[in-house]
Amino acid sequence: MIGIYLDQVRAHAPLIHNITNYVTVNDVANMILACGASPIMADEAEDAAEITVICGGLNLNIGTLNRRTIEGMFAAGRRAKGLGHPVLLDPVGAGASTLRTRTALEIMEKIRPDVIRGNISEIRTLWENRPGRSRENGEEQVSAGATRGVDADIKDAVTEENLEEGIAFAKAFAKEIGCIVAITGAIDLVSDGDSCYVIRNGRAQMSRITGTGCQLSGLMCAFVTANPEQKLAAAAASVCAMGLAGEIGWSRMKDGEGNATYRNRIIDAVYQMDGDTLEQGAAYEIR
Amino acid sequence: MIGIYLDQVRAHAPLIHNITNYVTVNDVANMILACGASPIMADEAEDAAEITVICGGLNLNIGTLNRRTIEGMFAAGRRAKGLGHPVLLDPVGAGASTLRTRTALEIMEKIRPDVIRGNISEIRTLWENRPGRSRENGEEQVSAGATRGVDADIKDAVTEENLEEGIAFAKAFAKEIGCIVAITGAIDLVSDGDSCYVIRNGRAQMSRITGTGCQLSGLMCAFVTANPEQKLAAAAASVCAMGLAGEIGWSRMKDGEGNATYRNRIIDAVYQMDGDTLEQGAAYEIR
Amino acid sequence: MIGIYLDQVRAHAPLIHNITNYVTVNDVANMILACGASPIMADEAEDAAEITVICGGLNLNIGTLNRRTIEGMFAAGRRAKGLGHPVLLDPVGAGASTLRTRTALEIMEKIRPDVIRGNISEIRTLWENRPGRSRENGEEQVSAGATRGVDADIKDAVTEENLEEGIAFAKAFAKEIGCIVAITGAIDLVSDGDSCYVIRNGRAQMSRITGTGCQLSGLMCAFVTANPEQKLAAAAASVCAMGLAGEIGWSRMKDGEGNATYRNRIIDAVYQMDGDTLEQGAAYEIR
Repeated sequence: MIGIYLDQVRAHAPLIHNITNYVTVNDVANMILACGASPIMADEAEDAAEITVICGGLNLNIGTLNRRTIEGMFAAGRRAKGLGHPVLLDPVGAGASTLRTRTALEIMEKIRPDVIRGNISEIRTLWENRPGRSRENGEEQVSAGATRGVDADIKDAVTEENLEEGIAFAKAFAKEIGCIVAITGAIDLVSDGDSCYVIRNGRAQMSRITGTGCQLSGLMCAFVTANPEQKLAAAAASVCAMGLAGEIGWSRMKDGEGNATYRNRIIDAVYQMDGDTLEQGAAYEIR
Repeated sequence: MIGIYLDQVRAHAPLIHNITNYVTVNDVANMILACGASPIMADEAEDAAEITVICGGLNLNIGTLNRRTIEGMFAAGRRAKGLGHPVLLDPVGAGASTLRTRTALEIMEKIRPDVIRGNISEIRTLWENRPGRSRENGEEQVSAGATRGVDADIKDAVTEENLEEGIAFAKAFAKEIGCIVAITGAIDLVSDGDSCYVIRNGRAQMSRITGTGCQLSGLMCAFVTANPEQKLAAAAASVCAMGLAGEIGWSRMKDGEGNATYRNRIIDAVYQMDGDTLEQGAAYEIR
Repeated sequence: MIGIYLDQVRAHAPLIHNITNYVTVNDVANMILACGASPIMADEAEDAAEITVICGGLNLNIGTLNRRTIEGMFAAGRRAKGLGHPVLLDPVGAGASTLRTRTALEIMEKIRPDVIRGNISEIRTLWENRPGRSRENGEEQVSAGATRGVDADIKDAVTEENLEEGIAFAKAFAKEIGCIVAITGAIDLVSDGDSCYVIRNGRAQMSRITGTGCQLSGLMCAFVTANPEQKLAAAAASVCAMGLAGEIGWSRMKDGEGNATYRNRIIDAVYQMDGDTLEQGAAYEIR
């Protein structure tokens, strides 16, 4: 019962507003088009607040953030929430710098995104610094330097060995923050606090392409926007779709091809995917 | 007599200055290189005004605009016009927000671009808010929200059924604004006010790739710059070249390929195209 | 003895901080991933200064620079140097505008990059305006307009005919500025002032892809960072690797493919390259 969420994206073709980093923005746009939705990008506060009105959902990604685009994120975020549009936060590099950690936390607190998608290191940074958490020494302190750039710490990966802890953590995060959380890695976890999808699609080589996480966030925002009554399942379906596209794309790789072509093959696989393919290829359990 | 305009681009290899959105800028650069011209990007006012001097033409694209880059557009636009360089305006998302509509109108009024290329929704927004148009209620009002993001409204498409109205509109726009207008969609119209090229190249799937419109604007700016005495025919030739590349690229698509690979195949097709191929493949009539 | 430097990149997987133009940034990221390193981009001064701390090397590229990102370059550059990280400067378009020339010179003087990589036109602009150079007429004057955009003047190309002068120039530049200089073109020169690598890998068609120079700068920064005791040889190895990837990628081009696909095939070739392949394919001599 996962395939239907992709069918809904294609049926409703939601327009997704993205304020996202300039590194991977083109791939995010093509990924959103590949799944049947449409992207628009606008990050100047004045423009962003108005553009978001004609959209169905908002995807906030803090990679290559700056003072001006942060202002745009808050302007668009407030407007989108006021209109009842789903808002997704991708806290790229939270934990790697104070500005990123602080911005992600502020968006979490003031915009209250419907969905947060990141790697385990980023999500843990948000958790450890979450609003309202009592601090032992009483002083405000925002962690930085804990994240190895935009990739999760290997030691922090969700594995078969620590899966129970991972699931418990995802549920606790979602429940306390009041959102859907998607923690992506070799094993992906998507939870709303009550149940947790454990997803085993994907291939390790996807991490050698820049922006597969950003692309997934765009895809997830489209899925959640097109399935407003089933946000958790839709978010999980997008993770399955991305992972499955990684598997299909890899199976089509030819001799001599590497990460640049693999990037295209993954987007192509989403473009070609229908609900049945997703249904049959999705590898998940609900816990 | 369309192929020669591509030959001229390859012969003269003009340098094209682009102030364009960060979503599709890489594809615009590769498209300009594919046709035999060279791209340069500079958007900081101080830099942009000076860079444009060493270029032959200027491509202004208002997607992801911000206060700083708007300033750069005016600085470069004024300088380019002062030097007699062709200036092209791509009013991405005009009608979708006040900032975009207002900026496009201001560029139209103060820079007076030689060519404006957009979809029917964007061009209609400019027309309805054009400088000097009498307003019924006397107050300034800039439309926003009329455009579905960066894609034209389906109801506003130029079709075989409303073709006569489309041609009349294109001619009226070009004549009153005093520029060449290119209205692109399933059927493309390019007019200088006196005659109108009606072009039927291209494939519907091109709209599932981000930035085919932006790429065409870059291509068109190169064609017009390399053919200063034949701007209308050169602009029309670029539309034929882009559409033909969409047809050739599609014919080379292999099993499992989608919009990401199609993007590459279109740019590749322009790279491989010569004047004869364009001549034979161009599907247009002059009205 | 060139292949080992690639093996070291894969063994150490350095994290490279890039402040680079938005035109080619995605390709730079994928190229850095292709060679086994990891990229991170951050250009807001506050963020950039902190992000660079968790990285191993810093790649500064002045294409599409603006006041804000220039500030970021200096903040990150000072921090990186303070930590002993290698800093690379890619003076894109130096000579084409005052802002670019001045910024490149200021970075050269105040940050003192370990490596400078550019085309002959850009490097000559830096040389003719280098800090401390006596000026005949006593007044400060920064050249602009000498560069044809971001491509080197043809007349300034390093050729077999003027190779001796080229080598002497590269050595003089490196010695006086106190850095490694890489002058890339049909023939590439990499010198530390004492010796000079003369490299004949690559294909002319690489210049019809946007950003092969930017990609090489990212690659070179990764190589130098992973081989801190052998910076000259590592920088030369990266030039061989890029050129060899251009040869391998070209050999895999199929009928109808052009510059967009060639771009992917080059990155793919680096992804697939190992030390032995580089060793056998590198075409260089040391002078």
